[in-house]
Amino acid sequence: MAILEGKRVSSEIKLQIIEEINILKKTTGKVPGLSVVIVGENEASKAYVKSKDRMASELGIKSNVIEFDENISSDKLIQKIIELNENDEVNGILIQLPLPKKFNTWEILDNINPDKDVDCLLPINLGMIFLNRTTIFPCTPAGILKILDFYNINVSGMNAVVVGRSFIVGKPIATMLTNKNATVTICHSKTKNLADHLRRANLLISAIGRPGFISEDMVKEGSILIDIGINYINKKDDVNEYCVESQIKKFDRKGYAITGDIHKKAYKKASYYTPVPGGVGPMTVTMLMYNTLQLFKKKQNLLK
Amino acid sequence: MAILEGKRVSSEIKLQIIEEINILKKTTGKVPGLSVVIVGENEASKAYVKSKDRMASELGIKSNVIEFDENISSDKLIQKIIELNENDEVNGILIQLPLPKKFNTWEILDNINPDKDVDCLLPINLGMIFLNRTTIFPCTPAGILKILDFYNINVSGMNAVVVGRSFIVGKPIATMLTNKNATVTICHSKTKNLADHLRRANLLISAIGRPGFISEDMVKEGSILIDIGINYINKKDDVNEYCVESQIKKFDRKGYAITGDIHKKAYKKASYYTPVPGGVGPMTVTMLMYNTLQLFKKKQNLLK
Repeated sequence: MAILEGKRVSSEIKLQIIEEINILKKTTGKVPGLSVVIVGENEASKAYVKSKDRMASELGIKSNVIEFDENISSDKLIQKIIELNENDEVNGILIQLPLPKKFNTWEILDNINPDKDVDCLLPINLGMIFLNRTTIFPCTPAGILKILDFYNINVSGMNAVVVGRSFIVGKPIATMLTNKNATVTICHSKTKNLADHLRRANLLISAIGRPGFISEDMVKEGSILIDIGINYINKKDDVNEYCVESQIKKFDRKGYAITGDIHKKAYKKASYYTPVPGGVGPMTVTMLMYNTLQLFKKKQNLLK
Repeated sequence: MAILEGKRVSSEIKLQIIEEINILKKTTGKVPGLSVVIVGENEASKAYVKSKDRMASELGIKSNVIEFDENISSDKLIQKIIELNENDEVNGILIQLPLPKKFNTWEILDNINPDKDVDCLLPINLGMIFLNRTTIFPCTPAGILKILDFYNINVSGMNAVVVGRSFIVGKPIATMLTNKNATVTICHSKTKNLADHLRRANLLISAIGRPGFISEDMVKEGSILIDIGINYINKKDDVNEYCVESQIKKFDRKGYAITGDIHKKAYKKASYYTPVPGGVGPMTVTMLMYNTLQLFKKKQNLLK
């Protein structure tokens, strides 16, 4: 069993991005720009936005974070999006989700210029994935493909089982794997006999959000396990049951730890697996930066 | 084993369309309009276009067929599409596919106003299916759902296996079934051990295009078989092997017959199946008319 070190892949891609931006800055006199819009006081969202802002700065991307009070009207928010659409220095626009409940999310998001849809969640951009006409993907699925590429794993002919059908992870990664010649099954909350499906998977991708839910007996010997789950654990017993050694130590220091959807005992049956933390997680923000760079290059007609 | 009589479902929907258009004509003073563009001399395409034009007229849809010589330039063809986009009497624009090889198909199709994309094949409209935000679907998948609805078949929790990953049938029906809570697997030419997948299907949808390819031993007892294949047979031995009784008689009269992808011997294991002919086939053109009506109603703000 080999570890798919997303953290390492992420570091390599970040170095490539820095290098490429340096060159582009010299040739075009410009750098990619990312605008992140956050509405309301969700602490988790604020932390994500902060880490995105920080990474953008590290990589040479011009980042600006626009914060709004929860009381802002839909019209004002849309007006800001239109302003960002028209701003030539902005290549990617990200509206941090979830928006506060009073908003109709799509009524807001549909205003983003599809050429600046850095999260790749607008219908036209998802449709382009469906039609296999694009190389820009939502960040987490894009990160999964980068990890597989890095380790020279060819999915053609594999049975892939995706657990979760969100439009941010499950559905796009399923379509992307179908386009790469895998035979893909999407499972979800209404699936019957989930374990039977999982046991047939050469490639198992889990985006459920339940700690250790996928147990040793549910995975196939020699399979590849990709874990999108990031689950917070704050009970000592649970930490010992679900978390890897480094997280157990973290719990002793900080009182919490994280773990994935796939139980650590299942790892030994796998040929490859992504750990939590350090697997797919670190790829997501990196791919946001990667997408910002792609959109910048697309605008400069530099995208192959 | 019960027959899913697409022909009958199609007839009922046609009656509903006629009735609704009559009412809309009185209330709005307008009728839905469909424009079909055909380029070149493909005989099969010409026959399809003719049948579409005829059915539109029968149902009270204002249809016009625009024929171009294969020598027309892309620019001229695009100019015609823009003209149709601007024509208020045209609710649906259909470019008959395949276009002659000299054309870049998407370079042409991408010019259709998405609100007039009656075949539902533009990225934005496929993306809306992906996001479960629409009730307008490509014609063949739409026809499949109508048949299942008509016979009160609820796919929630079923294992559905779709064979074929085209953007016209396989991928959209897979997404639509996922949205309806089925657990869906898409198989295709690169799938290994196809029969193993098929034998697990409660609902099997085949869009392969090979006569009788799916044999009795590949289908599950009690399953629902949906056959999209329309395969022409012109050898006596093949007709006897693959075709149903009425088609064997047709062969004796006309020298050809049609059959589906699913072998007739497999029918007896099914709880329901769509025959060929008379199953999904008759639904496709009917759903084109249905979509034209939907787009008309959408434009008049009458779509629920």
